[in-house]
Amino acid sequence: MARYQLIIAYDGTCFAGSQRQAKLRTVQSVLELALQKTGWQGRSLLLSGRTDTGVHASGQVAALDLDWVHGSEALQKALNARLPADIVVCAVKEVSARFHPRFDALWRSYRYQIYCQPLRDPLRDRYAWRVWPPMQGDLLQSAARLLPGENDFAAFGSPPRAGGSTVRTVLQSEWRQTDDMWVFTVKANAFLYRMVRRMVYVQVAVGLGRIELDSMQAALDGTDGLPAGLAPPTGLSLVEVQYSFDDVLVSKK
Amino acid sequence: MARYQLIIAYDGTCFAGSQRQAKLRTVQSVLELALQKTGWQGRSLLLSGRTDTGVHASGQVAALDLDWVHGSEALQKALNARLPADIVVCAVKEVSARFHPRFDALWRSYRYQIYCQPLRDPLRDRYAWRVWPPMQGDLLQSAARLLPGENDFAAFGSPPRAGGSTVRTVLQSEWRQTDDMWVFTVKANAFLYRMVRRMVYVQVAVGLGRIELDSMQAALDGTDGLPAGLAPPTGLSLVEVQYSFDDVLVSKK
Repeated sequence: MARYQLIIAYDGTCFAGSQRQAKLRTVQSVLELALQKTGWQGRSLLLSGRTDTGVHASGQVAALDLDWVHGSEALQKALNARLPADIVVCAVKEVSARFHPRFDALWRSYRYQIYCQPLRDPLRDRYAWRVWPPMQGDLLQSAARLLPGENDFAAFGSPPRAGGSTVRTVLQSEWRQTDDMWVFTVKANAFLYRMVRRMVYVQVAVGLGRIELDSMQAALDGTDGLPAGLAPPTGLSLVEVQYSFDDVLVSKK
Repeated sequence: MARYQLIIAYDGTCFAGSQRQAKLRTVQSVLELALQKTGWQGRSLLLSGRTDTGVHASGQVAALDLDWVHGSEALQKALNARLPADIVVCAVKEVSARFHPRFDALWRSYRYQIYCQPLRDPLRDRYAWRVWPPMQGDLLQSAARLLPGENDFAAFGSPPRAGGSTVRTVLQSEWRQTDDMWVFTVKANAFLYRMVRRMVYVQVAVGLGRIELDSMQAALDGTDGLPAGLAPPTGLSLVEVQYSFDDVLVSKK
């Protein structure tokens, strides 16, 4: 028996999120079904974190224990042959038996895509959020610069357990513009529930002049609230989860 | 009663092509249903050309006659409110009563997207064709340079009517690369049935070293055949149809 780490990509449109839920098609249940067909008898695979219904991923990470003698590459092929078209295993490697994709993560990064157009675009709506009127780029960039550092993000999401800490460390937060597209990249040690969609919603409100930068700063200082609201899931992708070399080293087991 | 020109965009994935077909969800039937809800009593709208099942469009053109007193902008809004999420009317204008979106077209342009990766990508497969191993860029570019001009494209598609001419004039044919993506842009006065998908298939075969450039040239000269095959519809989009100013002028009616 060895522990394997899987890097997974999926189009989240037809998944009811990542976590297993009775009777719903989720990333976890579809992966577990493919694993069972390759001889896996485990009870539950481990995921690096939850993605909501409709949220995509190019670098979700899973781990599971399996008796498998054919090597990592053959395991990847066997799984991909059994997975539907909207999910794929990008990489498989044997890791330390103590590796946990959620607790060992050093940081995670997400990407959020927006396009600014007066009319919906059927060729982009699956992977982006349409915002109109156009945002003021300087306000959007200023909003992004408020987020890095160790902050109490209570105004931006809820902790995994009631009463848990809402302090997180944001390592990167930036917008890049190409034509009518804005792409937000955010990296943090961990994220609260729905924190990225909330961050995007608040920054867009700042970019549209509907929320003052000062109100956003006050919310980070814990002295003021912010209007409720979430950016839609379609624009969001989990891009990468980073681990320290030691955590994934096979020889540690 | 006036004739209106509609510019239409759609994600072709869930349409059985553009032309009306009994019991199937097509671009034409979905548009006609929305038009009927706004009072249209015509028998059939006109389209600039056929797109296959799964082929997308950002600039398909339709025309229809309608009694409508509220102006073009209100017609666009009324239609979009009645259309599903995978299709949208991008623009509406009143045109000459003699305007025909197919017969009056000066040229049409298509775009085809390819990505070169060993593994399928659920976030790109809806709008691109995955090709592996990587293609030789110089061969691909050389293949594209064989297509412009007035040529007999009999080896690249079939005419709309049996026995019709297979001569077409290609005005532009070029590939642009960004990272692992290749985007083909092709413009011609008109296209044979499945001509773009066939052109892409043959050029990719050249880029992969499976067909000689000379064989492609011989096929254009009518002296040699080419192996059968079509690029999948997912990568293809109808981008634009161009008309002369006179053809769309309202005052002509």
